[in-house]
Amino acid sequence: MHSESGRGRKKAREPDLGILASRILFGVQREMFGRLNSAGHPDVRPRHGAVLAYINVEGTRATDLANQSGQHKQVIGNLVDELVELGYVTRQPDPSDRRAKLVVPTELGLDEMKRSDAIVEEIEARCAALMPDVDFKAIKQSLALIADVLHSK
Amino acid sequence: MHSESGRGRKKAREPDLGILASRILFGVQREMFGRLNSAGHPDVRPRHGAVLAYINVEGTRATDLANQSGQHKQVIGNLVDELVELGYVTRQPDPSDRRAKLVVPTELGLDEMKRSDAIVEEIEARCAALMPDVDFKAIKQSLALIADVLHSK
Repeated sequence: MHSESGRGRKKAREPDLGILASRILFGVQREMFGRLNSAGHPDVRPRHGAVLAYINVEGTRATDLANQSGQHKQVIGNLVDELVELGYVTRQPDPSDRRAKLVVPTELGLDEMKRSDAIVEEIEARCAALMPDVDFKAIKQSLALIADVLHSK
Repeated sequence: MHSESGRGRKKAREPDLGILASRILFGVQREMFGRLNSAGHPDVRPRHGAVLAYINVEGTRATDLANQSGQHKQVIGNLVDELVELGYVTRQPDPSDRRAKLVVPTELGLDEMKRSDAIVEEIEARCAALMPDVDFKAIKQSLALIADVLHSK
């Protein structure tokens, strides 16, 4: 066998940064949405996270959701339409600026937000407990640095 | 303001594991596919990575691609169909078992594999260089551990 013949096995054994990030993201999403879907939220999907992960209890402007999630404003607009349809948010005038609109969570939305925050906290606590030799908080800080390096291009 | 009012800002400032993984994955993909698309590979997309990231120079069985990428065999089958159409791979009988088929990269596929391996290596080297106080290899090992914890559920 020549040297490249084990490329697939090598990538599985020594995954690169992109493979590692995708395995972690899809692992978190599988658990998160599996649990939400069987706990009163059968219709929420990973894509809705761009809104539901960032929205404030008292509502958030679509522009702020776009900035915080890194998604285009039009993508956020489409996701908000879906979430209005599903009963998770409503669009309301912003009390601090009548020309602006706030995306405001409903009771169903608030329940999803509380549950999803708890699930990700539990996932992180489980990871930290299973890696006693590693400073999990330091790992997260390094990941934030890596994300900044990638997005500063 | 009550305590939850800064949820969006807090998530942007202290991102959770899912947010960190998605920022890194989409950062890698944006650079990777931006560069590939303007270097002779206008039609490759992130989803094709499940095949192109793992395939061996001499070909790989679809079952092995499914195992290594973590995707369902049917998803891999559809991606291989797309990549055959785009000229990146062909399906050929496996010389070691005539009943089995190998997915084998074409010249175009080999060029994409070489370029994408080089791009991700360059991204990792850039991250490591910009984080001189952090052991980048140790970070990757911790990420692999986290991915295993998440997938062992």
